[in-house]
Amino acid sequence: MAGSSFGSIFRLTSFGESHGLAIGGVVDGVPAGIRIDLEKIQIDLDKRKPGQSKLVTQRKESDTVQLLSGLLDGVTTGTPIGFIIKNEDQHSSDYDHLKDAYRPSHADYTYQQKYGIRDHRGGGRSSARETACRVAAGSIAKQILESLGIEFSTYVDQIGSVKLDDNSFFLSDAIESNVVRCPDNHIAEKMIELVEQVRAEGDTIGGCVKCMIVNVPVGLGEPVFDKLHADLGKAMFSINAVKGVEFGSGFSSVSKKGSENNDQILPNGETSTNNSGGIQGGISNGMPIEFRVAFKPVATIMKDQNSINDQGEEILIKGKGRHDPCVVPRAVAIVEAMAAMVILDHYLRNKATKI
Amino acid sequence: MAGSSFGSIFRLTSFGESHGLAIGGVVDGVPAGIRIDLEKIQIDLDKRKPGQSKLVTQRKESDTVQLLSGLLDGVTTGTPIGFIIKNEDQHSSDYDHLKDAYRPSHADYTYQQKYGIRDHRGGGRSSARETACRVAAGSIAKQILESLGIEFSTYVDQIGSVKLDDNSFFLSDAIESNVVRCPDNHIAEKMIELVEQVRAEGDTIGGCVKCMIVNVPVGLGEPVFDKLHADLGKAMFSINAVKGVEFGSGFSSVSKKGSENNDQILPNGETSTNNSGGIQGGISNGMPIEFRVAFKPVATIMKDQNSINDQGEEILIKGKGRHDPCVVPRAVAIVEAMAAMVILDHYLRNKATKI
Amino acid sequence: MAGSSFGSIFRLTSFGESHGLAIGGVVDGVPAGIRIDLEKIQIDLDKRKPGQSKLVTQRKESDTVQLLSGLLDGVTTGTPIGFIIKNEDQHSSDYDHLKDAYRPSHADYTYQQKYGIRDHRGGGRSSARETACRVAAGSIAKQILESLGIEFSTYVDQIGSVKLDDNSFFLSDAIESNVVRCPDNHIAEKMIELVEQVRAEGDTIGGCVKCMIVNVPVGLGEPVFDKLHADLGKAMFSINAVKGVEFGSGFSSVSKKGSENNDQILPNGETSTNNSGGIQGGISNGMPIEFRVAFKPVATIMKDQNSINDQGEEILIKGKGRHDPCVVPRAVAIVEAMAAMVILDHYLRNKATKI
Amino acid sequence: MAGSSFGSIFRLTSFGESHGLAIGGVVDGVPAGIRIDLEKIQIDLDKRKPGQSKLVTQRKESDTVQLLSGLLDGVTTGTPIGFIIKNEDQHSSDYDHLKDAYRPSHADYTYQQKYGIRDHRGGGRSSARETACRVAAGSIAKQILESLGIEFSTYVDQIGSVKLDDNSFFLSDAIESNVVRCPDNHIAEKMIELVEQVRAEGDTIGGCVKCMIVNVPVGLGEPVFDKLHADLGKAMFSINAVKGVEFGSGFSSVSKKGSENNDQILPNGETSTNNSGGIQGGISNGMPIEFRVAFKPVATIMKDQNSINDQGEEILIKGKGRHDPCVVPRAVAIVEAMAAMVILDHYLRNKATKI
Repeated sequence: MAGSSFGSIFRLTSFGESHGLAIGGVVDGVPAGIRIDLEKIQIDLDKRKPGQSKLVTQRKESDTVQLLSGLLDGVTTGTPIGFIIKNEDQHSSDYDHLKDAYRPSHADYTYQQKYGIRDHRGGGRSSARETACRVAAGSIAKQILESLGIEFSTYVDQIGSVKLDDNSFFLSDAIESNVVRCPDNHIAEKMIELVEQVRAEGDTIGGCVKCMIVNVPVGLGEPVFDKLHADLGKAMFSINAVKGVEFGSGFSSVSKKGSENNDQILPNGETSTNNSGGIQGGISNGMPIEFRVAFKPVATIMKDQNSINDQGEEILIKGKGRHDPCVVPRAVAIVEAMAAMVILDHYLRNKATKI
Repeated sequence: MAGSSFGSIFRLTSFGESHGLAIGGVVDGVPAGIRIDLEKIQIDLDKRKPGQSKLVTQRKESDTVQLLSGLLDGVTTGTPIGFIIKNEDQHSSDYDHLKDAYRPSHADYTYQQKYGIRDHRGGGRSSARETACRVAAGSIAKQILESLGIEFSTYVDQIGSVKLDDNSFFLSDAIESNVVRCPDNHIAEKMIELVEQVRAEGDTIGGCVKCMIVNVPVGLGEPVFDKLHADLGKAMFSINAVKGVEFGSGFSSVSKKGSENNDQILPNGETSTNNSGGIQGGISNGMPIEFRVAFKPVATIMKDQNSINDQGEEILIKGKGRHDPCVVPRAVAIVEAMAAMVILDHYLRNKATKI
Repeated sequence: MAGSSFGSIFRLTSFGESHGLAIGGVVDGVPAGIRIDLEKIQIDLDKRKPGQSKLVTQRKESDTVQLLSGLLDGVTTGTPIGFIIKNEDQHSSDYDHLKDAYRPSHADYTYQQKYGIRDHRGGGRSSARETACRVAAGSIAKQILESLGIEFSTYVDQIGSVKLDDNSFFLSDAIESNVVRCPDNHIAEKMIELVEQVRAEGDTIGGCVKCMIVNVPVGLGEPVFDKLHADLGKAMFSINAVKGVEFGSGFSSVSKKGSENNDQILPNGETSTNNSGGIQGGISNGMPIEFRVAFKPVATIMKDQNSINDQGEEILIKGKGRHDPCVVPRAVAIVEAMAAMVILDHYLRNKATKI
Repeated sequence: MAGSSFGSIFRLTSFGESHGLAIGGVVDGVPAGIRIDLEKIQIDLDKRKPGQSKLVTQRKESDTVQLLSGLLDGVTTGTPIGFIIKNEDQHSSDYDHLKDAYRPSHADYTYQQKYGIRDHRGGGRSSARETACRVAAGSIAKQILESLGIEFSTYVDQIGSVKLDDNSFFLSDAIESNVVRCPDNHIAEKMIELVEQVRAEGDTIGGCVKCMIVNVPVGLGEPVFDKLHADLGKAMFSINAVKGVEFGSGFSSVSKKGSENNDQILPNGETSTNNSGGIQGGISNGMPIEFRVAFKPVATIMKDQNSINDQGEEILIKGKGRHDPCVVPRAVAIVEAMAAMVILDHYLRNKATKI
C-alpha cells in the first residue's frame, strides 16, 4: 500500500534512501532451480551507475550488490533473494543548503507536505538511486527469462529532437558501442554533440528509450485491468522523470484509419505489421513487444532558479554540484529491468490459467 | 491475479461478457456515510453507451445499472456495493460467422491461445461493454470526490489530425454541447466532418482524450512503484484501444531543456507552469492533474480483411454489422471513471501516511 | 482492504446484506476448460440454507444461485464467474425493534461504532447469510479439485459435550444420513436430543466441525507467512461464530512430548501417524489434511437479555422471532467451501514454484 | 504470492535462511513522524534469541539488528525501513549428515518435494531463525501502538499439562521474572521442573502462549474475510510449531449455551464478561483482545528416530547437537510481535472507513 513493492508473483520490495547506510530489497517469488550469474547483475548495475562517461553525472558509486539469501551454490531455492547495495561517496553536507529549500520540479515540496518530514540529503527516497534495486531485481528476472529464450533490445532512440528512425532488434554490442546507447553510431554522434552542448550551458535535455522484447510466448497478460501493456505502462511511469509511454503505433495511431492500423494475421499466427506492439486485448500475441518511454529533462540544472523554502519565502536555488545533463543513456538499464520483471511476473501468472 | 480487480482500498472487481446474462461488479472499500445519487451514475453510463448519435455504433443497450447492496436509504454503509447491468439487444447469432475466425487487431487469437476456449459472441470478455462497469464504479468514486471538492474536466481534444489546442478547464456544459465531446464547437465541427467521412468509407479513426482534475490535495500518490501517475497510467492503458498516455508536457518534454521544462514554485505553493501535470516525484502537488490518452482507430471496420481461422487457414473477414467509426467520444466517460477511481483510492491510501 | 475478497489467484469477492435485493459475488481466477455442474452448487447451498430441519432456524430462503458470466456451454472460460442469490422471505419490519438496540455478542455495536451507520435489518452484512456466497464459490472450487482427485470429508464431530471420537474419512452418505451431519448415528441421536432440549429452553449450543481432505498433492502452501494451515486458519476464523481452530494433534499436542508427537516418515513418503495434520513447515506432505473448528453457541436466544441502545440506555432485548438452536450442522457446508477455496488457491499458486 | 510478506498497509517482507549471510526484511507502510527506539527492538529480539537460559537451546546468536533506511534522526520518514540481522555461530558442517535426510515432523521432505532443491543447513528458510525478522518488525509496530496507548501482555500460560488459570493483564516485570515467562512464580517453578525433566530425557514438550491486548479502539477489523481475529489467527498459525489458536472462550464455548456465553453490554459500551475475546463480528469492541496459541513440542529431539533419506531409504536420525526442550518461552516475543503487526495494520486500514 505504501508502494515499495512491485509485481504479483515475481515481486520486488525495495528500501533505501540516497544517503542512508544502504539501499536494497527482497525479491520474492523467484522460481526454484535457476542458476543466477552474479556478474551479469553487476554488468547491468554498471550500465545504470553514475560516472560512466562525461555525459552523465560524475558522482562515483561502485553500486556493488550483495545477495544475502535465496541461493544455494548459485542456484535459486525458491525462497526470497534479499540484497543490499551500500551507499558510498556521500557528501551529505553538500545538501545542507537544500534542507529547507524546495527545488523546482523535484519531489521536495510534495514529500514535505505528504509526510511532514523529509530526508533532504541527495533527494532521499525520491532519488533515482533507488532504481539500482530495480536493476538488480530486473537482472535476476532477465536471467530467468533468458532460460526461456526471451530476449531484450533496449536503447536510446531519441535525445532532444535527434531521433533514430529504425525499428530493428539491435543487439547489445551495437547498443553498447557508444556512450549514449543509441545503436546507430551516426545518430549517436549527433546525440553526443547535443548533450555536450547542453551540458556546457549548465542545462539538461530529455530523451526516449525504446524497448523491444522477442520470443515472448502467446498468452501473457490478463484481460481487463491487468493487461500486459497496462502493467508495463505502470512499470515505466514508476521510473523517475518518465512523462509518456506508448505501445506499437502509439500516439501516431490517433491519426490513422482502422484499415491502416490493423495488423493482418498470417497463417503462422504472426502479423504482417506490428502496430499492436505485440499485445492484443492486453495479451501477448507472439510478435515483438514494442514500446517507447519519454523522459523529461533532469530537473537539477547548473543555472540559478527561483523557488521557495519551507516557510513559503522566495529563495534562489544556486546551480552547483554534480548533475546529469541527460539521464536517458543510464535509463536504458532501468527500462529493461522493469520490463523484465513485468514479463516474468505475467509468465508466472499465466501458469494458473489452466489446471 | 486474473486481473478483474482494480484499486487497493477503493476497489472494483468486475465480471461479465458481452453476451451473457449480465455484466456487473463489486465496489469494495466505499467509505461510509456518503449519499450516492443513482441518477448521476446513470447519466455517466449514458455517456458511454452505444447509440447516442450517428457517429457511434447504432447498437442499442439501455445500460441500466441496478445497485444490490451497500446502501441504506441512499447512503453508503461501508459495505461493498454490488451491481449488475443486464445485457440486452444481443444478436448472438450475428457472430456465428466469427466463431472460428480471428479478426485482425482484436483479442480473438490471443484469448483462444491463452485459454483454449473463447466466448466469441460480441467479443466476450474482451468487448468494451465491460467498461460500463468501470463507469458505474467510477461514478460512485466521483460523487465521493465531489464531496471533497475535487472536479474533473474530460473531453476529446483530438480526432485523427484535428486537434484542440486549448488547455482550459472546460465545464461539462461545453463538453456536452456537441456529439464528439470537444468543448470548442468550431473544432468539434471539423471532427464531426472527419468522422462522418471515415464512417462513409466504412473505416474508423483514432483520437485523444484529455483529462484535467482540479482541487486534488497535495500528497496523493506513493513514492517509488505506486506513483500517482503510474497508477493513472495503468488505469488508462487498461482501457480497450489505448496505445499511449502522457502527463503534463509528456512526449514534448523530450526535446525540451530542463530550464524550459522546470515548473517554478511560487510562494503559495503553486507553480508558474504545469509541465509536471500536477505530479512531482509521483505525488500530487496541488496543481491540476493533466494527462492525454491516445486511442487507436477501432479494429472493427466495414471493409473486407484477410485473416485466418482457428485451423490456421486463410479466410476473408467480411465487413458487416454495427460499428463505431470513432470511439473516442464514448471513451471520455471511461477515462474519467478510471481516473476518479485512482484519485479516490490514493486519497484513502494517503490517510495511513501519518498516525 | 475492506475485506470482501478472499484468495490470491482463485479469489472470491462477495457483496450483500441480509435484507437487500440480493447477495452475490465474483469468482476470479477460475482455470479455463473445466465443466461446472450447477446442480452440485445448488446441493451445497441447500446444505447451508435455513429451514432444513426443525433443529435449525425455520426461516425459509430458497437460496437459488444464478451464474451470470464466465461459462460457455457449462465450461469455464477463464473469465470471472459473477453470481447472485436473491434475498427472499424478508420481514424487514420484524427488525424494527432492533433498529437502535445493540444485541449481546452480535456485531451491532461494533458496526455502528466503526461506520457511524448500520443496516440493522437481519444483521445486515454481519448476517451469516453472507456465507451462502462462500458456499457457491467453494462449490466451484470443489468441482475443480474433484477433477484432480482431491476429496473432502466434513462433518459435525461435537455438539455441546457430545463428541464423536473417530478419525475416519467418512463418506457423504454417512454424513448426510441424519440432520446433525454426524456420521455416527448413535452419537448423532445424542446430539439431536441435546439440541432439541436446548431449543426447548429457548437457548442455543455450540459445536465443532471436523474437516479431512485427502489426495492433496505434496507441496501446497508457502513457507513463512502463507503457510497452508495459516491460510486455512484464517479461512475458518472468518466464518461467523468460530472461536477456535486446531490442526492435527492441535491443542492436545501441548501436553505431548516430541517423541510422542513426531510423525515417523515411511519409505513411501507417508507418515505412520498424522499429528501434523498433513502439513509440515506450512506445506502439505501428502497425508490427509485434518483440522477442527470450534463454533460458539449462536448469540440470538429466545430468552430476554439486558443490553443497551445506541443512546447508551439500558434496554431489555426480548427473545422472539426465528433462531437456530445449533448452527453447526449448517456450518459443515461453509467450512468445506472455505477449505476448498484455500486448497485450490494454493494449488494454483504452487504452479509458479518452478519455471 | 510466495508468502514472504505480511500485512496490508503496515507490511513486513522478510528474507533469509538460517545459514546464509544474513536474514532481514523491509517494513513498508510505517507512518511518518514516530520516534523509534532501537534499544527496545533489541530488547524484544533478546527475548526471542537462543541461549537465554539452560531451558532453551545453547546456540549463541547475538541477533543484532541493523536498520538501514526509513529513519531521519531516529524518526520515521514514511519510507520503508530495511533491516538486516547477520547470521553468526554457524556450524554449517554440523548439518552435513542431514543433507539427504528427512527429519520427522520437520519441513525437509516438503521443501524438497516442493522446490526440488533445499538448503539443508540449519533448516534453511524453515528455521525458526526467520522469526527474528518478525520480532524486529513487530517491535516497531509496538512502539507505534504504544504512542496510541495500546499495550500487550503476552506470557506462557501452559507447558505440558502445567497450566496457569488466571486471566489478569500481567505486567512485563511479572512475566520476565522467571525463565519460562509465566507471571505466576509458583506455576513457573512447576513448568521449569517439567522442562528440565524433559530435557534430561532428551525430549521436548509443548505449551501455550496467552496474549491480551488492552486499549484497542472500537472498530478495528473488517467484516467478512478480514475479520480482526481471522488476521490474528493467520498470524499465529504462520509461526513455526503452532497447531491451535482460540479467541475468548474458544474451544470451551463449544459446550456452553448461548445464555452462558453471551457478553452482556453495559451502558459504557463495555461488556460484563469477555467470552468474545474483545472482538464481535470480526471487529474490536474495546474490551481486551484475548487469545491463546498452542505450540506442539519441538520436533528436534535428542533421541534416535527412524526416518528416510531422499532416495526413500530407511535411515536412523541420530539425536545429537543443540536443541530447545521447550520453545514456548522464546515464542512469547514472536506471538506479541505478530499480534502487534496485525493490530497496527488494522488500525491503519480503519482510517479509510470514513472520508
